Amino acid sequence: MTPRAYNFSAGPAVLPESVLAEVGRDMLALPSAKASILEISHRGKTFEEIIAAAQANLRRLLSIPDNYEVLFLQGGSRLQFSMIPMNLLGDGHNSADYVLTGSWSEYAWKEAQKEGDTRVAWDGSDGNFTTLPANADLQLDSNAAYVHFTSNETIQGVQFGCEPDVGDVPLVCDASSDFLYKPLAMERYGLLYACAQKNAGAAGVTVVIIRKDLLERSRDELPSYLNYRLHAEEGSLLNTAPTFAIYVVRLVTDWLLNEVGGLEKMHARNQLKAKMLYEVLDSSAGFYAGHAQADCRSLMNVVFRLPSDELTEKFVAQATEQNLTGLAGHRWAGGIRASIYNAMPVAGVEALRDFMTRFRDTYAGSLPRPLSPDP
Amino acid sequence: MTPRAYNFSAGPAVLPESVLAEVGRDMLALPSAKASILEISHRGKTFEEIIAAAQANLRRLLSIPDNYEVLFLQGGSRLQFSMIPMNLLGDGHNSADYVLTGSWSEYAWKEAQKEGDTRVAWDGSDGNFTTLPANADLQLDSNAAYVHFTSNETIQGVQFGCEPDVGDVPLVCDASSDFLYKPLAMERYGLLYACAQKNAGAAGVTVVIIRKDLLERSRDELPSYLNYRLHAEEGSLLNTAPTFAIYVVRLVTDWLLNEVGGLEKMHARNQLKAKMLYEVLDSSAGFYAGHAQADCRSLMNVVFRLPSDELTEKFVAQATEQNLTGLAGHRWAGGIRASIYNAMPVAGVEALRDFMTRFRDTYAGSLPRPLSPDP
Repeated sequence: MTPRAYNFSAGPAVLPESVLAEVGRDMLALPSAKASILEISHRGKTFEEIIAAAQANLRRLLSIPDNYEVLFLQGGSRLQFSMIPMNLLGDGHNSADYVLTGSWSEYAWKEAQKEGDTRVAWDGSDGNFTTLPANADLQLDSNAAYVHFTSNETIQGVQFGCEPDVGDVPLVCDASSDFLYKPLAMERYGLLYACAQKNAGAAGVTVVIIRKDLLERSRDELPSYLNYRLHAEEGSLLNTAPTFAIYVVRLVTDWLLNEVGGLEKMHARNQLKAKMLYEVLDSSAGFYAGHAQADCRSLMNVVFRLPSDELTEKFVAQATEQNLTGLAGHRWAGGIRASIYNAMPVAGVEALRDFMTRFRDTYAGSLPRPLSPDP
Repeated sequence: MTPRAYNFSAGPAVLPESVLAEVGRDMLALPSAKASILEISHRGKTFEEIIAAAQANLRRLLSIPDNYEVLFLQGGSRLQFSMIPMNLLGDGHNSADYVLTGSWSEYAWKEAQKEGDTRVAWDGSDGNFTTLPANADLQLDSNAAYVHFTSNETIQGVQFGCEPDVGDVPLVCDASSDFLYKPLAMERYGLLYACAQKNAGAAGVTVVIIRKDLLERSRDELPSYLNYRLHAEEGSLLNTAPTFAIYVVRLVTDWLLNEVGGLEKMHARNQLKAKMLYEVLDSSAGFYAGHAQADCRSLMNVVFRLPSDELTEKFVAQATEQNLTGLAGHRWAGGIRASIYNAMPVAGVEALRDFMTRFRDTYAGSLPRPLSPDP
């Protein structure tokens, strides 16, 4: 058996070992189909049961009301950046508001500008995206087609504790990197989307949860694959669905329901894990400098810097030797990023915490002068 | 171990058992990553090697010239139906020609009409799509942006023996259902696309092979995910690629190269398999009525009807009992469809042939009157 490391990759990311074991065990043939999950028709009985179970699990975990559709689409969040304005702009709602809190919300906004008019409701780029807006900070257009925000920014490591209040304008959320990390008040959302490869499964499927009245905005002129209404009408089987990726979502959501015990418990575990690492940062006298302000810290991506690039390289190399992998920061940002999604075991975070403590003990003394504490 | 049936599903479809065994064996951890293929970053070394190998295998199998890019995209062929006109129409080439040989080419044409001007170069719908055009039958526009054709129609079971001759106009091919079934003269194509779930892997990735000069037609205004040029510039890693589906393409193309011995040998095996079934049709005195005319018959999808719906149901039910599954015709067409893609073993086709012979022997005599032979 090949040994497994503790994998802190930002996505595709760690999955529950019990899910991987089941996928491997049944790869040659699902009992009900006498064929592999990779080989069965998306319109056959076995897959119908799988996609129905995936959807039912999501509805149960998030208490999704009946007036929402749950879609399984391809193209990642990147394609959603375009599909959202293509479907939701127009018909008297000709501009959309964007809340810019980091790299991904900026990217979503950039794509939306190709499709129509947009406004920036808040822009944190001046502060290097270390903080988030309060409701009073948002400059909202009450006639906007929607307000888009990114619940968790993986590169900057900032995360909304609760949804912004946008009144009656549909709230659209990129929840790609914190989907299913805690219960949500789904009725506050018009549309919530998440690629699966962080908390919900493997790369290749994106979950879109959309309030049914918004489907009426999808125009017939849209390319079929880019039309939410058609996907809803066809139960996500407009064309061949990414069957395997949906199967993994089903297994991960089974795990959340049956092994974890639901999203309240998942949230408590996520808070515990994040606290362990942030405490190391806070007690490091500046050796580990966190990016996000304390009240905006992400429970999913712990982003920090070391005193030098040389120490950063040493940190990544020594961690890898100790089976703690995927810790290098995003290629746009540098530094260190520890992604501790739902499936990262507490033991993995403990191992990283202990490594960080040892690493600081070893190298903090060798620095040219004492470090100032965090501001 | 769960038993495996012979799976004649039209797609997702049968895969080589050795590929499935390897996927299952390594599911908990790829040795080089100490993590599952489902968990590793699309930008890490392990996946870089996988996508490079998948591309190199395709280049070797199809002798793809250096002036072509090989892309791995999401959204299926359905999204390609839109991306092709979005990217290739314009700039003095404002209309595209479509060759209509069955349901899928009609669908491609329908989507293209939303994006710009099109012409129909040939339309086989009057003949119920039982035949294909000769080169002389095509009404081509010499200034067309491209000519689109579908090399194999899965629903009607008709397949081009060789590419239509379209002069200097770029030839665009939907090869979704016969990709890699034989060697191709790639230099005759401007763009060839194929979803993977027939001959190349699992659902969730679509291979697009595009001549590099055509990338210049992609306008900056296109949504990023729909822009071929951006995907080419980023080596199919514009965003998180469908890593698992690309991994399976790599393993299937390894199998084609190393176990089958290349596409010449694959072609010979495919000819042998198809011949076995068509011989049963031809010697059935009309009990099994093939859809396609003899010179247009598909080596991938053998489509035929039985004398009654009652016998069709009996055929499917009895075949399933004998572990021959996925034989019901497309929901739009009815009848029977036996899909015998690359990975269907010769033994599976022999088993189906023998079943068909026994079934006819049992039921042909019970028909009210002798059947006339095939026209």
